[in-house]
Amino acid sequence: MKKHRVIFQPSGRRGEVPDGTGLLDAARNLGVDIESICGGKGTCGKCKVRVEEGFFEKDSMDSRMEHLSPLTDVERKFLKPSDGPGMRLACAARALGDVKIFVPEKSRAGKQVVRKAAGELHIKIDPAVKKYFVELGKPSLHESIKGDLEKLLEALEGNYGLKGLSIDFPVLKDLQDTIRKGNWGVTVSVWKGREIIKLEPGFVEVSYGLAVDVGTTTVVGYLTDLATGKVIATESMMNPQVPYGEDVMSRITYAMTNQEGVRRMQGSIIEGLNEIVDNIIIKGRESGALAAEATGGGEVIADMTIVFNTAMHHIFLGFNPEHIGRSPFIPAIQHGLDIKARDLGIRINPGSYIYVLPIEAGFVGADNVGVLIAMEPYNIEENVLIIDIGTNGELLLGNRDRVCSTSCATGPAFEGAQIKMGMRAAPGAIEKVRIDPATKEPVYKVIGKEEWNTHIEKIDAKGICGSGIIDAIAWMYKAGIIDKSGRFDMTAETPRVRKDHEGKPEYVLAWARETSIGADITITQSDVRALQLAKGALYAGAKLMMSKMGIEKLDKVMLAGAFGSYIDKESALTLGMFPDCALDNIYAVGNAAGDGARMALVSNLKRKEAEEKARWVEFVEIAIEPAFEKEFMQAMHLPHMKDGFPNLKKLIEKETPHVMIKG
Amino acid sequence: MKKHRVIFQPSGRRGEVPDGTGLLDAARNLGVDIESICGGKGTCGKCKVRVEEGFFEKDSMDSRMEHLSPLTDVERKFLKPSDGPGMRLACAARALGDVKIFVPEKSRAGKQVVRKAAGELHIKIDPAVKKYFVELGKPSLHESIKGDLEKLLEALEGNYGLKGLSIDFPVLKDLQDTIRKGNWGVTVSVWKGREIIKLEPGFVEVSYGLAVDVGTTTVVGYLTDLATGKVIATESMMNPQVPYGEDVMSRITYAMTNQEGVRRMQGSIIEGLNEIVDNIIIKGRESGALAAEATGGGEVIADMTIVFNTAMHHIFLGFNPEHIGRSPFIPAIQHGLDIKARDLGIRINPGSYIYVLPIEAGFVGADNVGVLIAMEPYNIEENVLIIDIGTNGELLLGNRDRVCSTSCATGPAFEGAQIKMGMRAAPGAIEKVRIDPATKEPVYKVIGKEEWNTHIEKIDAKGICGSGIIDAIAWMYKAGIIDKSGRFDMTAETPRVRKDHEGKPEYVLAWARETSIGADITITQSDVRALQLAKGALYAGAKLMMSKMGIEKLDKVMLAGAFGSYIDKESALTLGMFPDCALDNIYAVGNAAGDGARMALVSNLKRKEAEEKARWVEFVEIAIEPAFEKEFMQAMHLPHMKDGFPNLKKLIEKETPHVMIKG
Repeated sequence: MKKHRVIFQPSGRRGEVPDGTGLLDAARNLGVDIESICGGKGTCGKCKVRVEEGFFEKDSMDSRMEHLSPLTDVERKFLKPSDGPGMRLACAARALGDVKIFVPEKSRAGKQVVRKAAGELHIKIDPAVKKYFVELGKPSLHESIKGDLEKLLEALEGNYGLKGLSIDFPVLKDLQDTIRKGNWGVTVSVWKGREIIKLEPGFVEVSYGLAVDVGTTTVVGYLTDLATGKVIATESMMNPQVPYGEDVMSRITYAMTNQEGVRRMQGSIIEGLNEIVDNIIIKGRESGALAAEATGGGEVIADMTIVFNTAMHHIFLGFNPEHIGRSPFIPAIQHGLDIKARDLGIRINPGSYIYVLPIEAGFVGADNVGVLIAMEPYNIEENVLIIDIGTNGELLLGNRDRVCSTSCATGPAFEGAQIKMGMRAAPGAIEKVRIDPATKEPVYKVIGKEEWNTHIEKIDAKGICGSGIIDAIAWMYKAGIIDKSGRFDMTAETPRVRKDHEGKPEYVLAWARETSIGADITITQSDVRALQLAKGALYAGAKLMMSKMGIEKLDKVMLAGAFGSYIDKESALTLGMFPDCALDNIYAVGNAAGDGARMALVSNLKRKEAEEKARWVEFVEIAIEPAFEKEFMQAMHLPHMKDGFPNLKKLIEKETPHVMIKG
Repeated sequence: MKKHRVIFQPSGRRGEVPDGTGLLDAARNLGVDIESICGGKGTCGKCKVRVEEGFFEKDSMDSRMEHLSPLTDVERKFLKPSDGPGMRLACAARALGDVKIFVPEKSRAGKQVVRKAAGELHIKIDPAVKKYFVELGKPSLHESIKGDLEKLLEALEGNYGLKGLSIDFPVLKDLQDTIRKGNWGVTVSVWKGREIIKLEPGFVEVSYGLAVDVGTTTVVGYLTDLATGKVIATESMMNPQVPYGEDVMSRITYAMTNQEGVRRMQGSIIEGLNEIVDNIIIKGRESGALAAEATGGGEVIADMTIVFNTAMHHIFLGFNPEHIGRSPFIPAIQHGLDIKARDLGIRINPGSYIYVLPIEAGFVGADNVGVLIAMEPYNIEENVLIIDIGTNGELLLGNRDRVCSTSCATGPAFEGAQIKMGMRAAPGAIEKVRIDPATKEPVYKVIGKEEWNTHIEKIDAKGICGSGIIDAIAWMYKAGIIDKSGRFDMTAETPRVRKDHEGKPEYVLAWARETSIGADITITQSDVRALQLAKGALYAGAKLMMSKMGIEKLDKVMLAGAFGSYIDKESALTLGMFPDCALDNIYAVGNAAGDGARMALVSNLKRKEAEEKARWVEFVEIAIEPAFEKEFMQAMHLPHMKDGFPNLKKLIEKETPHVMIKG
């Protein structure tokens, strides 16, 4: 088969690809990150790339293009004259000759700033993996002969009351040599009081575990001392499945339309986790937090827990996600799973089990069970709504008598996708916004800079991330730039409110000169609509659950998820992301899913709780509720078409006419 | 590194080997079987090969030899002028240039005739793996959502009362697709009422298992219908570990002296078992015994049991056999083991467990536990001695109150090794002998021919196998050729009793013209001594156990093992292989170890019995008994120095002076 050379700039990555390979696939194979929110389905138009000169001769514009497949209708729809010459969509253009491709900054998938810190847990430490040291007598020919294992089991029963233990087969392989190497003293790691999963010669006190939260976009690992529950190192990365689709549905589609799709995505997440394992051990060692006696690499990790949504769960386990991807959305398994690390190819201690937390139903996965056991709504007397805002939105509502859950098809708008200038929470993203209602002039802050734009000469904004969008639209509403229905007021006397080249209204948040992309950063009419759809789904979901549960008023709202911690709760309430609640009773609770994984790592009781409560929670499929459509339409309004927001009203009344900038 | 071409004749196998490679190693690598009873340690002298002409020029004798390392002292000891020119030991000579090697027939390791048939078992069938068919309703969005696994478990509990089942992880992977492929009907294979190890779409009734007996020399597999216990196909092969050493100690030594020794021997037995799996399925299919609905290869086998001695057990499992190979002979584990087929690389249904029967102690391994549960001495009122004669000798002695076991270092003499003209039970081996006490003329039968030598013109004898040796020496004793102490009577007037070139006495069993090797087949003084040592060890072992147990007289003797079935019990008693017993109460019980494996395959009760009785049996380490030396010396005599043999006496008195040949 004919092959062509492809070079990507500015990274300079290059390689050979078979004739007809799509540029997006070529980029994936060469490790070049190109934004592809729709997963290469040609619906987002984010993967614009510019064809540079040929390699061997100065081609004219036309002959340059002959090295690629002809322009498609999809590309004609997304490519604008303002994009400049030579622009193509990476998902549509295929290499028919050698090509050199430039990926503009706007199309680069930047490394997300991971903002998930690990706080202290307040639970009783009782890990699934515990260590025991035993000394065995050296055998002689004149005593009754016992197998080394039988002798070890006898000592474990005699000294620690451990009965009926089994032993992992590969551990058994090294049993005799290990015992002799330790001069008949050996440290035994026992899983759940049932199975010997590790043996170390001599006395080795420390024991480590890894709790992992696999988000659609971000993966975080917490290296934990199993004896204290303390996190000694944190490591995070972009989910390496992002190139296969930025949201859950894109990845399911990728799995269904590519023969090796599941295997490939499973391989990429497992490789990613192995990278986390390697790096977190290095980090722990470099910081001195890892005990010196814990020699070696990932095999010092003796236990692991993991959470994710249902689709990531299935793909991680190598299950075909087809059946959970379409109605009636049946998962392969709901209960938790204990799987040998070696069966998954995760390079921790090979005999250790990875505890995959149970899932609830539909898209409400193990991550939500993590939230459940971390926040314990079943122990709270008041009515609490817990919103876990990641790439998907999951809701828990209830109190100690009854809790129900659902997932909302918010789409990825909250994370900056489907937004014209949206981007992930990476350096250069506008994350906070305030707008002066009088002048309509904004101030904003970007990630990676300490101060607001008014205090920095060169702020180099690049786009706008989730919390920035919520802020921007909430303040556009408060400043009267848009109305209740989300429509622009074109009468405002400011150059910032204008019409784009298609005649659609937009608001200029940052002028081109303030950016590193050389273009104005704007919030468009369709951005406002996308956010209205997302928040409308969330609100309608909460509302329907409240009516199902007979709850009229929320006592508490908890915003979970890394993104949840960065939302301005006033802006969220202003937009009507959820029903009214006293501002003081709205909490950002951080990465609750990750906290749940950490708790399960160090507490057998929490694992039990996870299994029980995952089955106890009532799952509500809101999409099939007859009232959903109506609730959703009403919830599209800002903050709502009909519902009152007494707490919001108090707030707005208190507000000074001019913008207050906090820190 | 320099490489040389090596060709082996007459097989014609050829290949390249690195400079300095031993010829025995080269032969192993090229799949050429050369006898190497000592495992290449230079102590048996069985691996004589002849250097043929060089490849490229007609070399003189000297230059021919320059392609090999110089003659060693070991070779000088074993090579006789009568061997002819160009002879070397394959274990000592190393290739330093291209060589062509001829392997004389005598040095070829022939394919053993496997004589292990599978009789009917009389036990209640209750296999560890059972099948259940369930029909699941097709789910809809309007019922409460359940995972497919949860639905399956509910059906299994509802229909069959199976509670708390787990599921093998890779089986879970295919659960959703399998259920849908079977149109919501699925056949579930459940192991021990605990774990789902296999799923088949639709209704599939038949279920198969494989029982395996790994002998030091021979491996046999029994493909069994799990519902009936019937063997539907048998397949056997030489143990592919034989090239690494013909007896247990040679293989342990090989493991200890070669870095990759264990891994290599483990790999070879596992590859051998996979070959048995493939062939037995083909056999079952070709004979029509395998149900047509059982499609596919080895994966139709849903359960497997295996027995072997302790050393083979450890090597099969990949354990370092060093510790069981030297005092105090500590095994890694004594209990039975359930190991996933995929963890061992055995290509049956990957989620199935292989049940490795427990071992007793020392070299008394799982095979003896097989004998134990097959013969059930613990249910017999009389005093029974069970001798399992393979490459090693294992004894069980006792009655329903108490049973003890031991292994005897008989050496491999019973199997034809350490015997000048000894060979395995392969075509051409003399297997039966009678000698006329008057004329000292023998008659004999060889394997592969239907009739005795007196009726066949060209009998083509090649050597003598275990049962032949026992017959020959017993009849030499009865004919007065040797006396009680094993010494030759040189006064007999027959050319058959003569002195060899070293002046040592020997008896000619077959003249060169009757053979295919062109040399007389003789029983030498040292052959008689080797047999005396072997039978003396066996007898002394039995005697010591009897005295330990306070048993004065044997009521029954059972000869187990394929070889045991072929021993002439009169000859065995004549030699004093075991203490006196009525001839009618001496039984050949066939491959009892294999029967035990088959029973464990189809009966949970037998597995339980194996675990309990293996621990209940008292192991006696006879080597450390103070009385052993004395007992052993006395037992070297034919049939014994002091003990009476009333039953033998009656027999001899009855015997006619002339030889009776039974067809």
